Amino acid sequence: MSLDVNQALNYQFTPTQSSYTERDTSLYALSIGASADPTDVNDLPFVYELSGKGHKAFPTMAVTFPFEFLPQLFEIPGFTVNPMMIVHGEQYFELKRPLPTAAILTNQARISHVYDKGSGALMIMETSTLDEEGEEIALNRSSFFVRGIGGFGGDRGPSGKINVPPDRALDATFQDHTQPNQALLYRLNSSGDRNPLHADPQMAAFGGFDRPILHGLCTYGFAARAVLKQFANNDVGRFKNMQARFSKHVFPGETLITEIDRIAEESGSH
Amino acid sequence: MSLDVNQALNYQFTPTQSSYTERDTSLYALSIGASADPTDVNDLPFVYELSGKGHKAFPTMAVTFPFEFLPQLFEIPGFTVNPMMIVHGEQYFELKRPLPTAAILTNQARISHVYDKGSGALMIMETSTLDEEGEEIALNRSSFFVRGIGGFGGDRGPSGKINVPPDRALDATFQDHTQPNQALLYRLNSSGDRNPLHADPQMAAFGGFDRPILHGLCTYGFAARAVLKQFANNDVGRFKNMQARFSKHVFPGETLITEIDRIAEESGSH
Repeated sequence: MSLDVNQALNYQFTPTQSSYTERDTSLYALSIGASADPTDVNDLPFVYELSGKGHKAFPTMAVTFPFEFLPQLFEIPGFTVNPMMIVHGEQYFELKRPLPTAAILTNQARISHVYDKGSGALMIMETSTLDEEGEEIALNRSSFFVRGIGGFGGDRGPSGKINVPPDRALDATFQDHTQPNQALLYRLNSSGDRNPLHADPQMAAFGGFDRPILHGLCTYGFAARAVLKQFANNDVGRFKNMQARFSKHVFPGETLITEIDRIAEESGSH
Repeated sequence: MSLDVNQALNYQFTPTQSSYTERDTSLYALSIGASADPTDVNDLPFVYELSGKGHKAFPTMAVTFPFEFLPQLFEIPGFTVNPMMIVHGEQYFELKRPLPTAAILTNQARISHVYDKGSGALMIMETSTLDEEGEEIALNRSSFFVRGIGGFGGDRGPSGKINVPPDRALDATFQDHTQPNQALLYRLNSSGDRNPLHADPQMAAFGGFDRPILHGLCTYGFAARAVLKQFANNDVGRFKNMQARFSKHVFPGETLITEIDRIAEESGSH
């Protein structure tokens, strides 16, 4: 394993396409738990193309766009690595405007930052997604922690205070059940993430887990659903950005609790 | 509404294609409840393309093949009808051999029988599905009961004793929970059945239901899963045929109980 920061930094990936249909859009929403409550019709626009409120793409579908770049991580010059040493540590994304419900989008990516965390290197892949007119519609920053190749004397980068709850009562708590076959469904969405770790008991055991684990980006979608429902009445136009650190695995079937602290409002009022 | 049996009988539909991928095959199985139990890995071959036992198409996926013919029901000569008067009454299908996990199949259909039930007409559409080599792989018989156009003096047809349990203890009972969003998932499989009755509360109310109902062919798949698991160890090669009458609606989220009476075994032993 080795890393030559000068070569890796600003490495431009070969562009990819993210092509999805209205069916994919609905399937994505189901794969992150939408409409699991039959008495709540507010999720219908995310899963039903003819709903009275129109068909809407759930914002976090944008985090599936960078996935096809992952094989190219192993083509970065000056970077040789054992894939087992790479952890998807954090995911940030922002939307410039709501996603279409069907589209063929173009993704451009580069290594935007390489930090020296001592025990490992933190590499950030920035993905810009363009619509059919060439306008940027989404920006992703995917952070990969690479164990064992730190200590090269580089910048440590910002200290990450993420997922740290404040020392006061939270504004809302959301509880949601994942389904026992949630990961099997999530892997069929258009993200393309068919990692056997999420389906195959043997591969999960190889990774040190009792059984297959849920995709971190699936739980990411559950968390976004909680916030958008609680504070934006599911209005996708009010979604701006999201960042999360993946700190612990989740097994399909487990309950997810999203605790929400509202720190400010656009209008300043409360 | 009118029916001229001489014109309608043996009407040949314009052939259709059923095209599906490995992803569709896994999605179909999830849409009929496969792998809802995380401790049971026996369903994995139906939902995971790299399972140790290979990837298998669940047999009842074959009942999705005739769906695309439905609009052509209204092109049958001598047959004018209000679509609201048509009920999908029964479904029979048989497999000549296991379905491939990805294929482009050709469907040929005709009106094979028209019976006079007094209060209505029973029309049977027989669909033969051919593989890429032109060999028949599946046969479907879909029975449509058309209210209000019986009494034309035709053959009454066989009296249907279907779904009638015997007067003795049953051999097995299977209980399975459908998910609250089961219909929203089922409608995204490759069957193409996007009838709003299964997704839209307003359309369901229009049809006289409190909320959207599950697809009858989804419950059909649940029943087949129970039998194949209990008596054939999920061996799709042992599946021959299946017939069911749709007698009552099911709401997504309800529990399905499949009671099984074993009447004979191939080998004659017990």
